[in-house]
Amino acid sequence: MTVNSRPGRPVILGQNQYGKAENRVVRITRDGATHHIKDLNVSVSLSGDMEDVHYSGSNANVLPTDTTKNTVFAFAKEHGIESAEQFGIHLARHFVTSQEPIHRARIRIEEYAWERIETSEANSRFIGADEVKHSFVRKGQETRLTQITYDGSSWEVVSGLKDLTVMNSTNSEFWGYVKDKYTTLQEAHDRILATSVAARWRFNWTADEQKMPHWEKSYEQVKKHMLQAFAETYSLSLQQTLYQMGSRIINNRGEIDEVRFSLPNKHHFLVDLEPFGLKNDNEVYFAADRPYGLIEATVLRDGCEPRIPVDLTNL
Amino acid sequence: MTVNSRPGRPVILGQNQYGKAENRVVRITRDGATHHIKDLNVSVSLSGDMEDVHYSGSNANVLPTDTTKNTVFAFAKEHGIESAEQFGIHLARHFVTSQEPIHRARIRIEEYAWERIETSEANSRFIGADEVKHSFVRKGQETRLTQITYDGSSWEVVSGLKDLTVMNSTNSEFWGYVKDKYTTLQEAHDRILATSVAARWRFNWTADEQKMPHWEKSYEQVKKHMLQAFAETYSLSLQQTLYQMGSRIINNRGEIDEVRFSLPNKHHFLVDLEPFGLKNDNEVYFAADRPYGLIEATVLRDGCEPRIPVDLTNL
Amino acid sequence: MTVNSRPGRPVILGQNQYGKAENRVVRITRDGATHHIKDLNVSVSLSGDMEDVHYSGSNANVLPTDTTKNTVFAFAKEHGIESAEQFGIHLARHFVTSQEPIHRARIRIEEYAWERIETSEANSRFIGADEVKHSFVRKGQETRLTQITYDGSSWEVVSGLKDLTVMNSTNSEFWGYVKDKYTTLQEAHDRILATSVAARWRFNWTADEQKMPHWEKSYEQVKKHMLQAFAETYSLSLQQTLYQMGSRIINNRGEIDEVRFSLPNKHHFLVDLEPFGLKNDNEVYFAADRPYGLIEATVLRDGCEPRIPVDLTNL
Amino acid sequence: MTVNSRPGRPVILGQNQYGKAENRVVRITRDGATHHIKDLNVSVSLSGDMEDVHYSGSNANVLPTDTTKNTVFAFAKEHGIESAEQFGIHLARHFVTSQEPIHRARIRIEEYAWERIETSEANSRFIGADEVKHSFVRKGQETRLTQITYDGSSWEVVSGLKDLTVMNSTNSEFWGYVKDKYTTLQEAHDRILATSVAARWRFNWTADEQKMPHWEKSYEQVKKHMLQAFAETYSLSLQQTLYQMGSRIINNRGEIDEVRFSLPNKHHFLVDLEPFGLKNDNEVYFAADRPYGLIEATVLRDGCEPRIPVDLTNL
Repeated sequence: MTVNSRPGRPVILGQNQYGKAENRVVRITRDGATHHIKDLNVSVSLSGDMEDVHYSGSNANVLPTDTTKNTVFAFAKEHGIESAEQFGIHLARHFVTSQEPIHRARIRIEEYAWERIETSEANSRFIGADEVKHSFVRKGQETRLTQITYDGSSWEVVSGLKDLTVMNSTNSEFWGYVKDKYTTLQEAHDRILATSVAARWRFNWTADEQKMPHWEKSYEQVKKHMLQAFAETYSLSLQQTLYQMGSRIINNRGEIDEVRFSLPNKHHFLVDLEPFGLKNDNEVYFAADRPYGLIEATVLRDGCEPRIPVDLTNL
Repeated sequence: MTVNSRPGRPVILGQNQYGKAENRVVRITRDGATHHIKDLNVSVSLSGDMEDVHYSGSNANVLPTDTTKNTVFAFAKEHGIESAEQFGIHLARHFVTSQEPIHRARIRIEEYAWERIETSEANSRFIGADEVKHSFVRKGQETRLTQITYDGSSWEVVSGLKDLTVMNSTNSEFWGYVKDKYTTLQEAHDRILATSVAARWRFNWTADEQKMPHWEKSYEQVKKHMLQAFAETYSLSLQQTLYQMGSRIINNRGEIDEVRFSLPNKHHFLVDLEPFGLKNDNEVYFAADRPYGLIEATVLRDGCEPRIPVDLTNL
Repeated sequence: MTVNSRPGRPVILGQNQYGKAENRVVRITRDGATHHIKDLNVSVSLSGDMEDVHYSGSNANVLPTDTTKNTVFAFAKEHGIESAEQFGIHLARHFVTSQEPIHRARIRIEEYAWERIETSEANSRFIGADEVKHSFVRKGQETRLTQITYDGSSWEVVSGLKDLTVMNSTNSEFWGYVKDKYTTLQEAHDRILATSVAARWRFNWTADEQKMPHWEKSYEQVKKHMLQAFAETYSLSLQQTLYQMGSRIINNRGEIDEVRFSLPNKHHFLVDLEPFGLKNDNEVYFAADRPYGLIEATVLRDGCEPRIPVDLTNL
Repeated sequence: MTVNSRPGRPVILGQNQYGKAENRVVRITRDGATHHIKDLNVSVSLSGDMEDVHYSGSNANVLPTDTTKNTVFAFAKEHGIESAEQFGIHLARHFVTSQEPIHRARIRIEEYAWERIETSEANSRFIGADEVKHSFVRKGQETRLTQITYDGSSWEVVSGLKDLTVMNSTNSEFWGYVKDKYTTLQEAHDRILATSVAARWRFNWTADEQKMPHWEKSYEQVKKHMLQAFAETYSLSLQQTLYQMGSRIINNRGEIDEVRFSLPNKHHFLVDLEPFGLKNDNEVYFAADRPYGLIEATVLRDGCEPRIPVDLTNL
């Protein structure tokens, strides 16, 4: 059995954090027969005076991860879930201010969107319109994300999304690049440009004294600007499109200072149909899985410091 | 090295099929500046006189899977992709009628839906409304499915969908069930009912002489009826909801004789908040992953034979 | 609200089954300091007199899926888990014999294998060898499968595995196939043959009076024969290899009458290095994801009826 | 159409990188009839003078991601794949030294291990032992990882692994923790401790002048020490086990200065069998999926700077 010797320790503890990950909380709010739903996946991560638990196994400073889970569910009742961001702020504040050994809390949340199922005419005639207001179908498009970090004095809110798949079937070119001895790619003057957007954006709200952004409206607007920039940019490279997407967000949303993108270039290869006596006039494509180009960059409001970590993926 | 002995063979070949699976074909149709997109995952499966290739490795009757792949892409040009069903019919007919050793072809297709990205007002003012008609975002809700089988004389078309996640936040009960010595479940008079719909439905179109259904409209209507039945059924069991969903389809869509469902009961457990001095008035739920109830059944037009295989899942 | 009308029902119920899927049960057996582990994923599926619950929502014949879950965990204590097959037999017999409305039970089980972690020499010297017999690492190779079906009189046991990935780097050819107008594939006289084996095999044990197979030994031997047949067959087609794998099992294991395979041809394409002035002498391959050939077949003991369903996959 | 205005730019470009991700290269080396296999998933990420491509779409400094893919395959021939680390070093050096605008290259590699299939006795008798040396089965346990970063002057090599699932069925306790108003967890004096290890470790080799580590042996030894530390630590918390695992590596492997772990606490809950009149004497567990505790920390050689990023996961 390992003897956990302490003195003269040649191996030291660095950054560490712990908590309960992926608490799947669903909150129903009833406004009479009209129900509303918030569907979140909440991960808690706490840091502070945690040397002892690593060196000796003493849990004297450890609030159990099970308790952090209970807190998520209790807070869904006590505070409701107005937005993922607001819910994360409640949680982060609680852990840092109520537990002396905890100096920093980071709450990460995934949110899944739902829309109402429209009822049938027959149903409306039979029972009166607007009757069914408790039935939902999951939208299933992108997953909304947020990360709230609090150290007892200042806030960092980084929101985002993943798995928003977009495609332009024209207005994309790729040419004029470097050629070396391993280059075989032909230049393209009309190609498909497709990607699955992973993005994070950082708010400049950092203190309780500041006016808090309207989180729901902000998200909706950021998504809209991002999609429009993708659609409206005549693209000479995915990097250019990326910059336009970020730039459109920064220019339109004063509450945001920084955006980070990770954009896989989801290749759609024009299929060679000549062996079959057919001409492929940008009509038939093979959608490839791997490998894929991976374009990642940060776009910043001039004068601001970058704070979003570089890697949104492990590949 | 194995000697592939033949005579007096004590081990025989049973049902067999082969082909290229998961051909990811994207078809763009250009109507001037307005583009249309069909995004499919096509799997080909052929059967016929294939004893030799199994017993001796002779490929004399084998059309390579690579050729079946090429055919998918060539047909996307030659025939276009009006609907997944129509495309599958072209393919199945081709393989059975052009290759003597092939007696049966089964084409399975997954289809991913896209919707247009709406352009910005600024863009509209600058360049005129309706300019960008080549930009799409993947809807990301359910995956549409179809399976076309042809044996040279009659057709079987089974369409369907998967991963359509739905939830009723009330109007669901569960009580009056059998209790044995292992029963601990409490009866519920107001619970969440949620499932991820996997469904297949069989068309009664089987011969070229019959009028072919309108595949696109049929799909849209079946999905609508299924969702409405889910929303409008006051449910005493998921089985009851399932039957209502199937029954609504059969009653409204004359082109369909049979529906098979596989419905996981995605449990949402009411969280016990009493230890924290809180009352959970059907507000806060834990969305569990595993285990889950799994409810599967076939619903049939009276007088019709069931033909859809029982298992839509391997669990 | 839907009125669940009964009389003159134009839509009828077909095959149906229900139960709790994916019960993740881990059973530890302690033999002094030496522990043993069984790690299963158990899915229960019951059929019988279930018309009422579908038509009217009456649960009078319904043993809750929650109870079937409880039974799995209780039986892990009461009967132990000698093998997945034996455990499934206990469960299936229980449901059919203890619940009058239940006429058929099907138990599906996935099993995850673990191996012991070997302790360090330092540990052995310090505390005596063989001390740590409670530490395991998941093997992580194939997933073992079984399916037990019981109707009150006879048994059907179909065992199997999935995700066993194998590769021959030579002794595989593919030529002499049919060429049509869509064929572009070049013949190959030395190619990589790789697949991820999904297999099911049916035992001829069907009655309690018969001597039961030794399930653990049978599995180990079937896997061995399958791997050896893959390795030792000089392959002219994946179909030929498939038949050899099945044939080797039937010939060596008298307890098994039927084997079904679903073998994706995991293509490894020789990379064209000529543009870079390099010769690729069967050294550098690109492992492709999609599309892939998919070869499926049943191999049978002569005189036996096939009973394993044709589809082990939905693609 | 967006006008990509430049002067007075209020939105600037931050850190950026690009390249081809997930190149699936398989390298076969033939030593007579004995074949060897290396199976990698290689991702290339390049940084440098890339402002223009983002601001204006000019690709004048851009080596296409397609070329980086070609280079991976060509290098598998030109240099062979002695180890993932050595292969990454060849690639990173090439991109930085051959392309003036590229200042930094980061190569990430996943490696999948294979083991030989043992041939049958019959085969050995018939054709002579040792004949089949070209048949492999994928081990399927952990995925090996490495990341090579080069800026033209110094190297950083961070290797690691993921998905190594381990379990102790005893010698784990958890008690003496903080209790607040949301705490309901009971203290445990004999629990299962299970995790799926994700780890990264940083080598202190940074310059070509230094003696390079033996990458293959180092990996094998690190894995061994990590497993042994997990097995041999009597654990009062997963944090304590984590520290012992890291500490054992640092103490035994002089070539490594830093280790980062992300350890999900894969909860195995003791099932309450009392309602069924049964006593659960640490025998029957429910393996839960979500939520899970997540314990993350860096362990460092005293005096060294931490450099491995904090997040190995996005949850």
